[in-house]
Amino acid sequence: MTSQTSTRTEKDTMGEIQVPSDRYWGAQTQRSSENFRIGGEKMPEALIRAFGLQKLAAARANRALGNLEPKIADVIQAAAREVADGKLSDHFPLVVWQTGSGTQTNMNANEVIANRACEYLGAPLGQREPVHPNDHVNRGQSSNDSFPTAMHIAAVIEIEERLKPALRHLRETLEAKSRAFGKIVKIGRTHMQDAVPVTLGQEFSGYAAQIELGLDRIEDALKRLTKLAQGGTALGTGLNAPDGFDEQFAREISSLTGLKFETAANKFEALAAHDACVEMSGVMNVLAASLMKIGNDIRLLGSGPRCGLGELILPANEPGSSIMPGKVNPTQAEALTMVCAQVMGNHVTVSVAGSNGHLDLNVFKPVIIYNLLQSIRLLADASVSFADHCIAGIEADEEKINSYVEQSLMLVTALAPHIGYDNAAAVAKKAHKDRSSLKEAAIALGHLDAEKFDELVRAEDMI
Amino acid sequence: MTSQTSTRTEKDTMGEIQVPSDRYWGAQTQRSSENFRIGGEKMPEALIRAFGLQKLAAARANRALGNLEPKIADVIQAAAREVADGKLSDHFPLVVWQTGSGTQTNMNANEVIANRACEYLGAPLGQREPVHPNDHVNRGQSSNDSFPTAMHIAAVIEIEERLKPALRHLRETLEAKSRAFGKIVKIGRTHMQDAVPVTLGQEFSGYAAQIELGLDRIEDALKRLTKLAQGGTALGTGLNAPDGFDEQFAREISSLTGLKFETAANKFEALAAHDACVEMSGVMNVLAASLMKIGNDIRLLGSGPRCGLGELILPANEPGSSIMPGKVNPTQAEALTMVCAQVMGNHVTVSVAGSNGHLDLNVFKPVIIYNLLQSIRLLADASVSFADHCIAGIEADEEKINSYVEQSLMLVTALAPHIGYDNAAAVAKKAHKDRSSLKEAAIALGHLDAEKFDELVRAEDMI
Amino acid sequence: MTSQTSTRTEKDTMGEIQVPSDRYWGAQTQRSSENFRIGGEKMPEALIRAFGLQKLAAARANRALGNLEPKIADVIQAAAREVADGKLSDHFPLVVWQTGSGTQTNMNANEVIANRACEYLGAPLGQREPVHPNDHVNRGQSSNDSFPTAMHIAAVIEIEERLKPALRHLRETLEAKSRAFGKIVKIGRTHMQDAVPVTLGQEFSGYAAQIELGLDRIEDALKRLTKLAQGGTALGTGLNAPDGFDEQFAREISSLTGLKFETAANKFEALAAHDACVEMSGVMNVLAASLMKIGNDIRLLGSGPRCGLGELILPANEPGSSIMPGKVNPTQAEALTMVCAQVMGNHVTVSVAGSNGHLDLNVFKPVIIYNLLQSIRLLADASVSFADHCIAGIEADEEKINSYVEQSLMLVTALAPHIGYDNAAAVAKKAHKDRSSLKEAAIALGHLDAEKFDELVRAEDMI
Amino acid sequence: MTSQTSTRTEKDTMGEIQVPSDRYWGAQTQRSSENFRIGGEKMPEALIRAFGLQKLAAARANRALGNLEPKIADVIQAAAREVADGKLSDHFPLVVWQTGSGTQTNMNANEVIANRACEYLGAPLGQREPVHPNDHVNRGQSSNDSFPTAMHIAAVIEIEERLKPALRHLRETLEAKSRAFGKIVKIGRTHMQDAVPVTLGQEFSGYAAQIELGLDRIEDALKRLTKLAQGGTALGTGLNAPDGFDEQFAREISSLTGLKFETAANKFEALAAHDACVEMSGVMNVLAASLMKIGNDIRLLGSGPRCGLGELILPANEPGSSIMPGKVNPTQAEALTMVCAQVMGNHVTVSVAGSNGHLDLNVFKPVIIYNLLQSIRLLADASVSFADHCIAGIEADEEKINSYVEQSLMLVTALAPHIGYDNAAAVAKKAHKDRSSLKEAAIALGHLDAEKFDELVRAEDMI
Repeated sequence: MTSQTSTRTEKDTMGEIQVPSDRYWGAQTQRSSENFRIGGEKMPEALIRAFGLQKLAAARANRALGNLEPKIADVIQAAAREVADGKLSDHFPLVVWQTGSGTQTNMNANEVIANRACEYLGAPLGQREPVHPNDHVNRGQSSNDSFPTAMHIAAVIEIEERLKPALRHLRETLEAKSRAFGKIVKIGRTHMQDAVPVTLGQEFSGYAAQIELGLDRIEDALKRLTKLAQGGTALGTGLNAPDGFDEQFAREISSLTGLKFETAANKFEALAAHDACVEMSGVMNVLAASLMKIGNDIRLLGSGPRCGLGELILPANEPGSSIMPGKVNPTQAEALTMVCAQVMGNHVTVSVAGSNGHLDLNVFKPVIIYNLLQSIRLLADASVSFADHCIAGIEADEEKINSYVEQSLMLVTALAPHIGYDNAAAVAKKAHKDRSSLKEAAIALGHLDAEKFDELVRAEDMI
Repeated sequence: MTSQTSTRTEKDTMGEIQVPSDRYWGAQTQRSSENFRIGGEKMPEALIRAFGLQKLAAARANRALGNLEPKIADVIQAAAREVADGKLSDHFPLVVWQTGSGTQTNMNANEVIANRACEYLGAPLGQREPVHPNDHVNRGQSSNDSFPTAMHIAAVIEIEERLKPALRHLRETLEAKSRAFGKIVKIGRTHMQDAVPVTLGQEFSGYAAQIELGLDRIEDALKRLTKLAQGGTALGTGLNAPDGFDEQFAREISSLTGLKFETAANKFEALAAHDACVEMSGVMNVLAASLMKIGNDIRLLGSGPRCGLGELILPANEPGSSIMPGKVNPTQAEALTMVCAQVMGNHVTVSVAGSNGHLDLNVFKPVIIYNLLQSIRLLADASVSFADHCIAGIEADEEKINSYVEQSLMLVTALAPHIGYDNAAAVAKKAHKDRSSLKEAAIALGHLDAEKFDELVRAEDMI
Repeated sequence: MTSQTSTRTEKDTMGEIQVPSDRYWGAQTQRSSENFRIGGEKMPEALIRAFGLQKLAAARANRALGNLEPKIADVIQAAAREVADGKLSDHFPLVVWQTGSGTQTNMNANEVIANRACEYLGAPLGQREPVHPNDHVNRGQSSNDSFPTAMHIAAVIEIEERLKPALRHLRETLEAKSRAFGKIVKIGRTHMQDAVPVTLGQEFSGYAAQIELGLDRIEDALKRLTKLAQGGTALGTGLNAPDGFDEQFAREISSLTGLKFETAANKFEALAAHDACVEMSGVMNVLAASLMKIGNDIRLLGSGPRCGLGELILPANEPGSSIMPGKVNPTQAEALTMVCAQVMGNHVTVSVAGSNGHLDLNVFKPVIIYNLLQSIRLLADASVSFADHCIAGIEADEEKINSYVEQSLMLVTALAPHIGYDNAAAVAKKAHKDRSSLKEAAIALGHLDAEKFDELVRAEDMI
Repeated sequence: MTSQTSTRTEKDTMGEIQVPSDRYWGAQTQRSSENFRIGGEKMPEALIRAFGLQKLAAARANRALGNLEPKIADVIQAAAREVADGKLSDHFPLVVWQTGSGTQTNMNANEVIANRACEYLGAPLGQREPVHPNDHVNRGQSSNDSFPTAMHIAAVIEIEERLKPALRHLRETLEAKSRAFGKIVKIGRTHMQDAVPVTLGQEFSGYAAQIELGLDRIEDALKRLTKLAQGGTALGTGLNAPDGFDEQFAREISSLTGLKFETAANKFEALAAHDACVEMSGVMNVLAASLMKIGNDIRLLGSGPRCGLGELILPANEPGSSIMPGKVNPTQAEALTMVCAQVMGNHVTVSVAGSNGHLDLNVFKPVIIYNLLQSIRLLADASVSFADHCIAGIEADEEKINSYVEQSLMLVTALAPHIGYDNAAAVAKKAHKDRSSLKEAAIALGHLDAEKFDELVRAEDMI
């Protein structure tokens, strides 16, 4: 904005102001960009596109209810579609750190669409006629209901189109490995200490189950995130919106997106609180906890190559060190777990912001949606990257895995039902102390003979 | 433990140790109490009672499956029932800060029940026969599956018996106020600034809706929290548990509690992760965000008595100040919002703990359940206290409320559809500048006459 | 990267790869950009510039210690200076979500500088000679020490050049208001309820004191953040770095920046943990708590214009509502408090990441510095914006303020030392009940006469 | 309180109420205990004792300033001393979840001390004379300044007497191990992968350095936590306190405790915010991050006994498993890391609470001090337990450690300065692929002969 060569005059209720002539935005957008020079985090693209859909559905609903003349509705719809398709994203310059209602971004959408619609009709920009940003584009709406509606639309679309496919892909990749590793008997580890055997496939089945349950959690939380504030206008009263606008809007947006949205039962709640976003952020937080666990396990089991647990061989995607030649690192697990840390912190931001609504409007809306969308995006992308660049290429080092099983003392657990917990413990302790095998210790203590030992202690029967 | 006069000898696989003779616990409990002198936070009573139920259901399941002789099962069941009923709580001295698997508390339960069962049979304490803590009380079980099972049982019971009734009570109290205040038209406030009118009942309906949705969230999360790890034994393999033990156990515990529990589909996930607890903690976090909002609103609307918003008159339960005579404070809202801050922090603890599971067992179990149970309890108690000592006694100061409505400039919003947004804004600005009424300003600017103004601007029509 | 028309071949120890011919980066950067398609958060510009300084100081230190021939050092220094000046920022395409050691960004710096240095010497790009990214640019260094060094340099510079001036500016703006409002006696409010009088200047002095103490906290934490890992190379041992490299580097970077950096006393700690970053993030968290409080107070005191507390008149910077004409909102306070919520969440991210270091290297480095730098930047920018667009323009509505003081019942506190707490409470209660003045109530209860009341109860003497 | 057989009548400004006759508390304490039946978390003992000191110092300061007659001061001082010594702790029944100013606990202290003082003088309880809880015990004070003063006193004493000695003990225990392990060359691990060698002593020196720096951080934050609000009375104005009371109080409390306290420079800040507590909680959070790292390292290095890294042999303090006989677990590390998770969550609670102060008083005081004191206590106790029951008994498994060093490929790093990074990488890759030694690979690739290899690659020279 510093070097633009030409400007035009735009105005709002506070007066006139110069805006870059090659941009569709108007006075309020310009004021915001000058008054809020904070950070560089732009309103997320997914939210801007959702605003396109929101304005498009609103125009259709107004038209259907006889609240907007078709000629005006036509051009608003055409312009809103361009926003929804991301074609006008360069005309949305505002940052997250603006008014807490997101009014300035709602007005940014109103202004861009109004100007672009005027252009369609051959009218000059900045005149606010024949299409006015407030009176036409924002008709029957308020920032109070439009912004939370766009928040929900954006988050639901990102979840449906990005996150759920990504998680399904990761789950399937894990399940494929679980099947492939189904017969590899390995030592289990609890408290990071040697324990009884499991199969490597069982371990991967646990990871897959975590993702599966994560998908269930998303589905449950979507029940509330698909409820929309639109129609509440200012404060939830529905003032200045035509009768039935809320239901009609929900039908239009459902039709436009192919997703099932419904109008919120209580609009006061839908404006003054963002519990549905806090809840979905909480689901992202559970996924972060799940993936942190999985990522850590993978790097533990893949540690080595010679001085670690070394049960898994991870794909080598790039050189690992600028000083240690030949080093290969579990970089995908690292990227994944960093994403998890981010999501856990984002969740606190969303929770703090959600808890700070005062009276009839929560004014932490932009920071809530910025963090929620970042969490969704990062979890989705990282899941795909982790699945494709790490999990899919993992191989088991069966030689190493077998050697552990043979050495482990915890196979003694299979003896407990036969010789009692206390005697079994004595066997394990003796073997540990003597650095001998369990079998030797068990025989030495006289609890059973070699044949019986071999019959009872079979790792492959313990899984 | 310092001053007890007499002790008896107990033993475990590490040898003999002295325990207080008037206590049923054994060697491992004693070791833990000596090795972990950290803080003073005992394992929650609700968890101890849940362990009683868990041991009771396990004994019944073993018996049903022919895995435990009836004579032994009888006394284990009798002793476990005493634990479940809280009669032996003094025999559970261990703190939260012990082994991360909760093994020591599982052994505490095994030891107490074994000794008490031996006593029933006339055998001396500490002999580990005829009822052995590991071989009998813990039969077919491991701490790995018993502890998470007890965690889920405890949390589900606390939610069912304590939290859900409390939230329903709060919701009903809010709804009653919403109805009582249904016709009181008042000024709304967005951005903490005067906005268009709402009814006081509408505001309270929003609060009630938040609680209602919170109950829905609990219900969804319970779907996963009622899944039990029992039957997984060590690591989830089911080693040493009889076939069908997991299903039988779920039936027994359901029958004992009257609640619907099921066995977890994937036991590896159920031991190595605690995503279901992280999820439920996240639901508590949403409730905390909701209640923080409600609590803040109540103290804002009740601020005064003469220099605040003063729309609500809060019950005066106690003197408010040690230095300012006659002061009354919104103390219930304060207790409630402090509880919310606690729950929000507890959620981070649970999330950090849940994310730090390594390999086949998450070893942050005690800290997870301690925090989750505290959150449940505090939210339940604070909801009841807030409902009874604050919400139920709230009265509206209608005189004050009316005076605001009469003064407010935001009624101008009703003019916008008729004279346009820009003209309406000019009216509001003129009235603000002149400290005049909207009507005077509207007429002065020539937009409409007094009669038309009175027809269009009616607060009671704007809600 | 999708549409580039021409590429050149670069190689590393894994083989050859195509990179865009108009970019200086090499094979490892290219691999990372292909393997980590996660989110869109680039490594922060401040970190990239700090890497320029780090490579520049390293080249100077190597040269001073006779570890790099001057001809090579010359061109490395020239290229590094360009990075430090931000001239090559377009050549740093990598995202935060990469290897957790930041090796790929260190290699990005090594590769860009090596190619640019080769170009200075007339050699073709991609040949790794005469200037090699590892052997020359990275000489005596490892990602293990270079990345944390660049983290500290970046954070310290951002704090010194951006945050501290911003906070000082905010503090001075608050102090100026405190002085200007020094004689305005107003009602105080505790528990959101009317309390004894204070001056408006005293309230602003409290805000200024919070910022002042925040600056003190920064200064203390800088003692540890100015300690540098450089010289530790891999793991902290100093392997392959010349003797004295750590001290020499600290001198060079201090000289380059004009800031006082020192070499860390224990390099193992400096690589394997990021406690200094967690600490500084904690200081940002305190600032967030401070500014959340200040922002909330400003919007509370500025609430209205007719139905709020209305003691402050906030500057009207832009239209406040898309539906309510003429509405003005405390948008700067909203942006500020949203920033605070972000910083509080970022702090959790940094803490989780900091706590998850394993063995000899913490591999959450990029997410730590990304969040810390974001917190620093947002707090700085928001402080300036809030100071200039809100605090500086605040006016007191003295008429409103006086009317509260006259009505308040809490002036009764001044009577307590004279008639006792219990009698004073009775006076306040009577006045409240009768909706009368304190004076009337006090006289009616016979505690003192009008003259005595006027002598004792003087708001201006209570501050 | 349900079953007491006898009561006496107490009264306050709200009227009469029955209290248990064997308790010193009065009407306001009783009201609070009835109105706040929330959870079971009592106000921490350390805070109650600090209140004893606060009342004692206040009485001394009043007396010194001629503001309290010696006869009354004498008995107040005697009673307050009993509170400070913990002799009257049973008379403090209130929970954390009460009024957010802590007024009810301040009144609890005033009432207990007043009644006990009356008793000293032979007067009956409950008459509020000759010693009145407000007029005498609370003279010159308000809950507004007394409660935050007691918060700071309690936290400072707990830090000085409990935490600092504990951390010094842990640091010394780590340093002793660092010295003992100073010559044990072992493989380092970055990214959980084999890296260049370090000594085990160096690793422990890093842990010790973390604790050392933690102590430095405490010292810096104490500069602000030792500043006291006392003398600010209501809101910070000092109303009803004699001139010089703040300074005199600071001298008295310093003399009583032997610790250096000073009066806060700005009392408005000291009441309305709790930044000093948020800061100190942040320091606890850094310690939690440090100890989480150390605890995780210990359990990683001690993993095994046969299938883990197995470099450390941890002391076996108790049986580890209820089902796996003979299992020994790193339980002290588990308790420690659970404490760390708790402290990290407590910090969020404190931060949320600290950020939610409104206007002239932060009313989240009890929850702030409850969490801060819990964090201090848990970190202190867990540090001692971990030092004594884990670190002190750790032994190195030198056989295992040596075998890793011999196998590791990362010794190739020592070749890089001699044959170049790219050639060195090729050597490592060849050895890895062939499962051969580095030396064999290096010779096979013709980079150097065996003699030269042995000269250059010496683990003991790489540290």
